[in-house]
Amino acid sequence: MRDVVVFSGSAHPALARRICDHLGVELSPVDIKRFSNDCLQAQLLTNCRQRDVYIVQPLVPPTQENLMELLLMIDAARGASAAQITAVMPHFAYARSDKKDASRISLGGRLVADMLATAGTDRVLTMTLHAPQVHGFFSVPVDHLTAIGVLADHFRGTDLDDMVVVSPDLGNAKTATQFSRLLGLPVAAGSKQRLADDKVIIDAIVGDVEGRRAIILDDEIATGGSIVELLDRLKDFGCTEAAVACTHGLFRGKAVERLRRHPMVSQVVTTDTVPEPTGWPELQIRSVSQLFAEAISRIHAGESVSSLFDGVDPTHAPPQRSLFDHAH
Amino acid sequence: MRDVVVFSGSAHPALARRICDHLGVELSPVDIKRFSNDCLQAQLLTNCRQRDVYIVQPLVPPTQENLMELLLMIDAARGASAAQITAVMPHFAYARSDKKDASRISLGGRLVADMLATAGTDRVLTMTLHAPQVHGFFSVPVDHLTAIGVLADHFRGTDLDDMVVVSPDLGNAKTATQFSRLLGLPVAAGSKQRLADDKVIIDAIVGDVEGRRAIILDDEIATGGSIVELLDRLKDFGCTEAAVACTHGLFRGKAVERLRRHPMVSQVVTTDTVPEPTGWPELQIRSVSQLFAEAISRIHAGESVSSLFDGVDPTHAPPQRSLFDHAH
Amino acid sequence: MRDVVVFSGSAHPALARRICDHLGVELSPVDIKRFSNDCLQAQLLTNCRQRDVYIVQPLVPPTQENLMELLLMIDAARGASAAQITAVMPHFAYARSDKKDASRISLGGRLVADMLATAGTDRVLTMTLHAPQVHGFFSVPVDHLTAIGVLADHFRGTDLDDMVVVSPDLGNAKTATQFSRLLGLPVAAGSKQRLADDKVIIDAIVGDVEGRRAIILDDEIATGGSIVELLDRLKDFGCTEAAVACTHGLFRGKAVERLRRHPMVSQVVTTDTVPEPTGWPELQIRSVSQLFAEAISRIHAGESVSSLFDGVDPTHAPPQRSLFDHAH
Amino acid sequence: MRDVVVFSGSAHPALARRICDHLGVELSPVDIKRFSNDCLQAQLLTNCRQRDVYIVQPLVPPTQENLMELLLMIDAARGASAAQITAVMPHFAYARSDKKDASRISLGGRLVADMLATAGTDRVLTMTLHAPQVHGFFSVPVDHLTAIGVLADHFRGTDLDDMVVVSPDLGNAKTATQFSRLLGLPVAAGSKQRLADDKVIIDAIVGDVEGRRAIILDDEIATGGSIVELLDRLKDFGCTEAAVACTHGLFRGKAVERLRRHPMVSQVVTTDTVPEPTGWPELQIRSVSQLFAEAISRIHAGESVSSLFDGVDPTHAPPQRSLFDHAH
Amino acid sequence: MRDVVVFSGSAHPALARRICDHLGVELSPVDIKRFSNDCLQAQLLTNCRQRDVYIVQPLVPPTQENLMELLLMIDAARGASAAQITAVMPHFAYARSDKKDASRISLGGRLVADMLATAGTDRVLTMTLHAPQVHGFFSVPVDHLTAIGVLADHFRGTDLDDMVVVSPDLGNAKTATQFSRLLGLPVAAGSKQRLADDKVIIDAIVGDVEGRRAIILDDEIATGGSIVELLDRLKDFGCTEAAVACTHGLFRGKAVERLRRHPMVSQVVTTDTVPEPTGWPELQIRSVSQLFAEAISRIHAGESVSSLFDGVDPTHAPPQRSLFDHAH
Amino acid sequence: MRDVVVFSGSAHPALARRICDHLGVELSPVDIKRFSNDCLQAQLLTNCRQRDVYIVQPLVPPTQENLMELLLMIDAARGASAAQITAVMPHFAYARSDKKDASRISLGGRLVADMLATAGTDRVLTMTLHAPQVHGFFSVPVDHLTAIGVLADHFRGTDLDDMVVVSPDLGNAKTATQFSRLLGLPVAAGSKQRLADDKVIIDAIVGDVEGRRAIILDDEIATGGSIVELLDRLKDFGCTEAAVACTHGLFRGKAVERLRRHPMVSQVVTTDTVPEPTGWPELQIRSVSQLFAEAISRIHAGESVSSLFDGVDPTHAPPQRSLFDHAH
Repeated sequence: MRDVVVFSGSAHPALARRICDHLGVELSPVDIKRFSNDCLQAQLLTNCRQRDVYIVQPLVPPTQENLMELLLMIDAARGASAAQITAVMPHFAYARSDKKDASRISLGGRLVADMLATAGTDRVLTMTLHAPQVHGFFSVPVDHLTAIGVLADHFRGTDLDDMVVVSPDLGNAKTATQFSRLLGLPVAAGSKQRLADDKVIIDAIVGDVEGRRAIILDDEIATGGSIVELLDRLKDFGCTEAAVACTHGLFRGKAVERLRRHPMVSQVVTTDTVPEPTGWPELQIRSVSQLFAEAISRIHAGESVSSLFDGVDPTHAPPQRSLFDHAH
Repeated sequence: MRDVVVFSGSAHPALARRICDHLGVELSPVDIKRFSNDCLQAQLLTNCRQRDVYIVQPLVPPTQENLMELLLMIDAARGASAAQITAVMPHFAYARSDKKDASRISLGGRLVADMLATAGTDRVLTMTLHAPQVHGFFSVPVDHLTAIGVLADHFRGTDLDDMVVVSPDLGNAKTATQFSRLLGLPVAAGSKQRLADDKVIIDAIVGDVEGRRAIILDDEIATGGSIVELLDRLKDFGCTEAAVACTHGLFRGKAVERLRRHPMVSQVVTTDTVPEPTGWPELQIRSVSQLFAEAISRIHAGESVSSLFDGVDPTHAPPQRSLFDHAH
Repeated sequence: MRDVVVFSGSAHPALARRICDHLGVELSPVDIKRFSNDCLQAQLLTNCRQRDVYIVQPLVPPTQENLMELLLMIDAARGASAAQITAVMPHFAYARSDKKDASRISLGGRLVADMLATAGTDRVLTMTLHAPQVHGFFSVPVDHLTAIGVLADHFRGTDLDDMVVVSPDLGNAKTATQFSRLLGLPVAAGSKQRLADDKVIIDAIVGDVEGRRAIILDDEIATGGSIVELLDRLKDFGCTEAAVACTHGLFRGKAVERLRRHPMVSQVVTTDTVPEPTGWPELQIRSVSQLFAEAISRIHAGESVSSLFDGVDPTHAPPQRSLFDHAH
Repeated sequence: MRDVVVFSGSAHPALARRICDHLGVELSPVDIKRFSNDCLQAQLLTNCRQRDVYIVQPLVPPTQENLMELLLMIDAARGASAAQITAVMPHFAYARSDKKDASRISLGGRLVADMLATAGTDRVLTMTLHAPQVHGFFSVPVDHLTAIGVLADHFRGTDLDDMVVVSPDLGNAKTATQFSRLLGLPVAAGSKQRLADDKVIIDAIVGDVEGRRAIILDDEIATGGSIVELLDRLKDFGCTEAAVACTHGLFRGKAVERLRRHPMVSQVVTTDTVPEPTGWPELQIRSVSQLFAEAISRIHAGESVSSLFDGVDPTHAPPQRSLFDHAH
Repeated sequence: MRDVVVFSGSAHPALARRICDHLGVELSPVDIKRFSNDCLQAQLLTNCRQRDVYIVQPLVPPTQENLMELLLMIDAARGASAAQITAVMPHFAYARSDKKDASRISLGGRLVADMLATAGTDRVLTMTLHAPQVHGFFSVPVDHLTAIGVLADHFRGTDLDDMVVVSPDLGNAKTATQFSRLLGLPVAAGSKQRLADDKVIIDAIVGDVEGRRAIILDDEIATGGSIVELLDRLKDFGCTEAAVACTHGLFRGKAVERLRRHPMVSQVVTTDTVPEPTGWPELQIRSVSQLFAEAISRIHAGESVSSLFDGVDPTHAPPQRSLFDHAH
Repeated sequence: MRDVVVFSGSAHPALARRICDHLGVELSPVDIKRFSNDCLQAQLLTNCRQRDVYIVQPLVPPTQENLMELLLMIDAARGASAAQITAVMPHFAYARSDKKDASRISLGGRLVADMLATAGTDRVLTMTLHAPQVHGFFSVPVDHLTAIGVLADHFRGTDLDDMVVVSPDLGNAKTATQFSRLLGLPVAAGSKQRLADDKVIIDAIVGDVEGRRAIILDDEIATGGSIVELLDRLKDFGCTEAAVACTHGLFRGKAVERLRRHPMVSQVVTTDTVPEPTGWPELQIRSVSQLFAEAISRIHAGESVSSLFDGVDPTHAPPQRSLFDHAH
């Protein structure tokens, strides 16, 4: 297998370029054409034969357009005899469709995973899936990165004295717990009830937040509704202010408006898995491009990707030898 | 296998309702939800278990949205234990991506065919594919209808005296030839060179058009560029006026403007495989809903679909016994 | 498709017989043979051709033996030309292997789902999967039943005055919430940290339990370790006594000993998805055999299975028409 | 991946040897055995393990025998752990079965493509498919070569003064157009109607051929019926003589007789994708073996195959960077 | 699923007609066309939609032609929406390619089984496979008939006094043993060494044959080489004369000449799984058409096929209930 | 593809270590965990990315446990991006389920072969399959080793004067014949009838054994029943004593007791494809670990594995060039 070739669709070329800069390769050009009947076509403008091909495309709005572009680029790379195709989806949005919570409902997470395999992807490289079980929807190997190390770095060195990490959802508090360990902080969590897609009620806070400053940690913020709900609850429980940290900062609809000037919010920090929202200069963005570049580099070199997360999160880090060797 | 159940996505519910009226069944409701991160979810609101399910969704703009809706509805029907799922795509727009006319290009027609199979469709019911070879892209059975009988009916009984059927493209003149036989008219064809997706040059007309009125027959009209080009050529060759007939009348971009008041155009007739354009009350629309209803009815009853086209087009009609029986 | 034929492996023939009694069919015999090299072989002793075949086998210890029996029976039914094969797994134990919570780990839930499809199952009928996402591991349709209606019936008509439903795990509190609604009770939850497979720490109780009698609801009880931990916490928080209710009552290792005479435990109620433990005459067992029989009967008749759960749990019940009809 | 290993079946060993000569490798021996019940068996007599294996076998008469040999050799190579298997089919005859032009008809082109994948081929290397859509019948990558550069070379340097390139079929005139550009000649085309497999009527010639010498270009000549028909029409339209050029010169049945001494025919030139016919010493044969050797060499080395056709045919050549870089 | 439709390729239409006579249905016509480039095409001339389709085609010489016809007919039936397709191969000749008895050899039996599945067959109906393991090469259900009942009937009622059943091969003596039980005769066997495909040496006879008349039972006779070898050995061991019985009487090459007037041979009896040889009026042919018709009828009706062989051969007959019921 | 990594499950770690010693690599650790509900989980503790992974696990009792471990380790290796996964099964016990010798019976050999492919194995390395046809059950390449060279070495150099090789089963005498040629000895065989899984009757011995010492050669010895039966027959026929040699020495149940002190038995020799039985110090065990190590080494290096068996067994050895080259 020969050189690394990186392509990008229309979803987030800036991230692709950052990844390429870290890798020291040029981003290879793609020609995406829209026919007059609105069908798309992708043409890869760099030789892929026997190459190790990476196609960077987070599933961000317009999600269907970006998904179809990704599928067509994978199809083109397979037809062009790529040695190995990795779909690099820093944000796999369809992971939210992960269960049949009603009858006769589509299961988009599994369907899109199967479609990616049908198109010809050999591997998926992604970050912070909405639920860890979504990993099992894929029939191809998945390298699942985490941003909590990058987000923790953002807070390291600042005054952490009276801070507490808060997860909006007790069901997903595992990641927040791990994050809090990185910073040596206590952890708390909201007890969340989702009434509809963008309407939640948080009716309790587990853990002590009174008189403390919170760092709220979430995986994806879309409209920001549940965060605002949590901020209200934190205020009720005596929390003084809150920093908001999330991996996938979509900030759709009124999210910018809701969060930018919220009286409880001290700062908002996110990563560049998705394009940055407009009109929010104060938003703190920590790039995960180096992490993706390092992962690509290790995948290409056949080195462990999980060791990237040694000391960060044991779920993503390589296994530790047990004290006593395994019987055989 | 029990009752027929028909669903429709957002692409063309009016056609679905017409089909249902002919079938004498009610259109079953679907709930299509858009999450705040722009992902879609489909929920079928009628029991599908052991039912013969038909999902009506032509691939019209916004094509990617409509395609994803179709895939999600198929996935939901499969998960809900449908006995048989037929994707009813009156217009399969991705058929235009049918060849690798450049290196490292995606082959959308095959990819979408594979994706439909991955989602779980058992059969495809469609009309007038851009090229007959596209049939071979599908791994599931395809029932391929033709609208030329319906379009010929439109002209039957009118004054056909000095008319000639004209195909814009000699390469696809076979259908025009068949159409001309239905009306007892001569046939002619343009020699077409496609420079780009919406720019063509027609440099010759094969067959005698001088002093005649033309019926131009095409499969799909999107921006109408090549039709206008053909009209100019026909005028050059002495044609007096032209009726325009096509199966899939998308009429995108400037198409309405270009064709509605073109001095050569006597009338434009199309079908309802796709939603009708706005602002064109004179457009003649012949419904193919009865044809689709009849095909569905025969598929359900296990009767021959091809015999629908007896005397219309031998390509779609059932095989005729040879004069002398086959040797065994 | 003709008659229903029901087979059972060695895992839980008593349940299979109960299901057959409700269905009014005889349990068909199977001959499972063990070769001298410890390989298994299954022979179905009733004609399966064009039959609607159901194979009842929960994945209970010895789990690998029971899984292999199930796979071999499916293989035999497929080879014997069954029209449709449904793997009836009242307890799908491998659902607990649902995520990669460490690197280079097997994902047993997905693997076993794929193996069942490879062997030839057309459908899975199961109850109370450990996580709802596991549904998405299967490529065949899954009918997912719930026992909470049956368990709620157990408590209906008894004195519920000062009771509270308690979920051991806030992450899975959704089912407990639904259960509490059926009984008109408040709900609380433990905040659980799993240190190892059979060692957990519960460090908080969300919701008011003081002076109340608890009904602890869990999906599976194996060694009972986490329930005992929860009982201790409930006592700390002033709870007076606790009834324990669970769907899959494996009661392995010291579970019987731990729970039978625990001072806090007023009663333990479970279902017969798995064989009952020995030496525990006071254990309350509510049979789900009628529910499975009804589901099989509806699958066979092509009727809605989800409507079995109307008014029980909206996740399992059929979709409700929205107030305003869907646009198309 | 290690060395290139080339095998040949019985179809065209001479071509295989020529390819090997250009590659500088020895043709590896195969033992094809016919059992007394007429079944075939293939044994590869050279180690294939981790080798890059190429199996040369055009689908020429006896087509079924040669197809089965090819499938068996692929099967043997896969079983012998080849790293990559390429089916080198200089002529893929089943491409003519590319559409359902009648009901209940087999679609041989797609079926054979699927059978090759089932046997285990990883890639197809072929030349001049009957229709470009046939590319989409394959689920494995296809490298599709063109012979028009080789055929154009044959005429370069000769007196081209009053010549015109003629395509027998307007529907396939695209290749003739490209060929004419290579020689700086005008192009014309017949308007062809196929009545049966070996009977065609050409009823018109588009383009000026009067007083000119023609170069007829076709993809495959089997019985030569349509070429003779075209020659008659060309004579009617005042053409003085004709050279005949085709990629796949099968010359079956009366073809040699018909063409060898036809008064209009100045010369016939073809390639060696298929074995040469007997009894026709004047037939001009241009070898495509070097082209295939170069393609194999580039496939093995991971270099662009399409760049072989730079300046020859843009359909086969690599994509040209657009003037303005792609938007992202 | 509706009516039975039976088609036949060119291999053995007489058998197909006999089967149809027993079934009381008409043989449906097929049009097999050979293109001028030697490719085949099949067209089914009877409606297959939702029908139960049976395609009769033993794999007899010309084997490759007949195999390709079969594959194309299956493909056509699938494309024509048959409900179920059964490949009726009374003789599956490729079963002889059942093992890798040398390195880098093709495994034709498995390959052809996979190709049939790829083409779309849902089931195989066959008779007397060369080795019982070949059953396991198919991924679709196989109904495997035996002719030993029919062959035993041939001898019943004749003078069996001093007869002995002789298997040419000790390795396959199981069938001969079963056959001998049907007639109440002793059994013997040759110890066979196959030197090449049509050359064998038999060096021993196990069992007493001296002074006895033999009935030699074999599965397939192609050139008859091994039978002649066995006759010589039987003579050496004092056998007085021999009747020869086989299921698949191909009688290729010198077989007719060798066996027809062999001094040891009293009679030769075979079945009509393959077409009868020419020039051998004394050959006794027992038809298996009724057996195939009955099997088809039971497959269609969902009745047990194995019960056709109750009392004939326990390997093909349905399982017998054990004395004591299975534990569960 | 990079380094070789070898893992072992619980079945036979001693053999895995021996193979590693010969290869000069360390056995990589695996953590196999049993959950409290008896489900298994495998974690590979060494990086597999782009590695050539070998997982050593014979299918020995407890067979189902060991099979599931193997499947889980394969699944983990695939998920960990191994370049190539080889299931090293020195004993593939399910090969005994190789035919449908009764109706509606499972075909375990094929099912397990399919399950291994589903889990993700790319290749199988095994020794002495019960029947050579089982090779055809696998869809992945199989490297099939033989132990007869190793077993013959055991007897070379000892006094072979009056010895004879005896196969318990005439049907499988081919291997014994090959073994006898290696030692220059005559061969004989029992005529075996298997009444049930562990009960056989041997009613004849073909070949001269009177006054001779026998070497009995078998593939697998489980309970030893058929060997004891053979010993009795050999004694009846005047044989003086017998050495017993087999590849897979399971020695289950009473086998040790039966064979260890049997008056006819001079010695028993087996290999280490399976763990050695307890309580039998005199058992001679010849290791096949070097053979497996050499095969792994050649698979990794892309060298011929069959040439390991040059001069040992032509079935396993590479093909010999014929005297006269193949026609093409």
